[in-house]
Amino acid sequence: MGHMAANRDQLLARTRRIAGQVAAIERAIANEAGCAAILHQVAGVRGAVAGLMDELIADHLQSHVVAPGLSDAERAQGGEELLAAIRRYAR
Amino acid sequence: MGHMAANRDQLLARTRRIAGQVAAIERAIANEAGCAAILHQVAGVRGAVAGLMDELIADHLQSHVVAPGLSDAERAQGGEELLAAIRRYAR
Amino acid sequence: MGHMAANRDQLLARTRRIAGQVAAIERAIANEAGCAAILHQVAGVRGAVAGLMDELIADHLQSHVVAPGLSDAERAQGGEELLAAIRRYAR
Amino acid sequence: MGHMAANRDQLLARTRRIAGQVAAIERAIANEAGCAAILHQVAGVRGAVAGLMDELIADHLQSHVVAPGLSDAERAQGGEELLAAIRRYAR
Repeated sequence: MGHMAANRDQLLARTRRIAGQVAAIERAIANEAGCAAILHQVAGVRGAVAGLMDELIADHLQSHVVAPGLSDAERAQGGEELLAAIRRYAR
Repeated sequence: MGHMAANRDQLLARTRRIAGQVAAIERAIANEAGCAAILHQVAGVRGAVAGLMDELIADHLQSHVVAPGLSDAERAQGGEELLAAIRRYAR
Repeated sequence: MGHMAANRDQLLARTRRIAGQVAAIERAIANEAGCAAILHQVAGVRGAVAGLMDELIADHLQSHVVAPGLSDAERAQGGEELLAAIRRYAR
Repeated sequence: MGHMAANRDQLLARTRRIAGQVAAIERAIANEAGCAAILHQVAGVRGAVAGLMDELIADHLQSHVVAPGLSDAERAQGGEELLAAIRRYAR
């Protein structure tokens, strides 16, 4: 991905936070925590995943579609990939 | 949660699968995989989290609202918790 | 639906507001308004539809699942209908 | 929006279909139709609104970000507008 190098650390930190939230849900289920609490934790993960997706979309748009110096064909491909991701995500 | 004991193993298996998907995203970012591929993986996690939420909501509805023998007060509380979770999730 | 009589007027008002928002989008497209503005209007309709769905779900849950005096079979059916709606909506 | 002229008729047809679905919900509420049926209709509108949004996003991306011949500043602005719409929509 190249362009991600710049904020790769930030993306990794976000992903690790999500991993931590998922591990907490696993423990909560194993320990038979109250299910209202577990529902809340899952809603939190959903928000964190949406935040990661948002950052990836912004990165992709910037680097593969908007960036000066790309060829028309590169922009067209970057745009197609973006739409495919949004469609799959929004379903 | 009690009622979850029945399908706790299934919920744990689902949660572990999500943990595995998140770990794969972390590796993909660390290895600078193509970002179209990463966007796809994140969309997959989103679907898996939605599936987990769906199962938790069905469990909660069954055990804390629908189940025969609950008191009116228990049903009212179970219903409130369910709405709170749906609202937070759907936002 | 019976139970909706109570807040039928409120649901109708919500629905008419959505109809008004959709009519405004139709005019904006016909008049070739800027597409950033149209995207914004569509996002607004999405929020309003989610609000209507939320109110309908809360009503249904209260009247067909939580309400004192329902039979076990009625609650079971009300719960099934609710899950079907949430699943279709969340997809 | 200019570029929309091409498929303005298609967008108008989509929007009118949504208006028809919303009008049907209004009648169903007024006539006290069963609430499972109404929940279903609202889920249908949500899908139709998502389809309209999807088409608008694809149009906007193509015309204001991907299209050959745009200036760097135009692409940057088109990209910002797109992200703002996706963020507001996905919330």
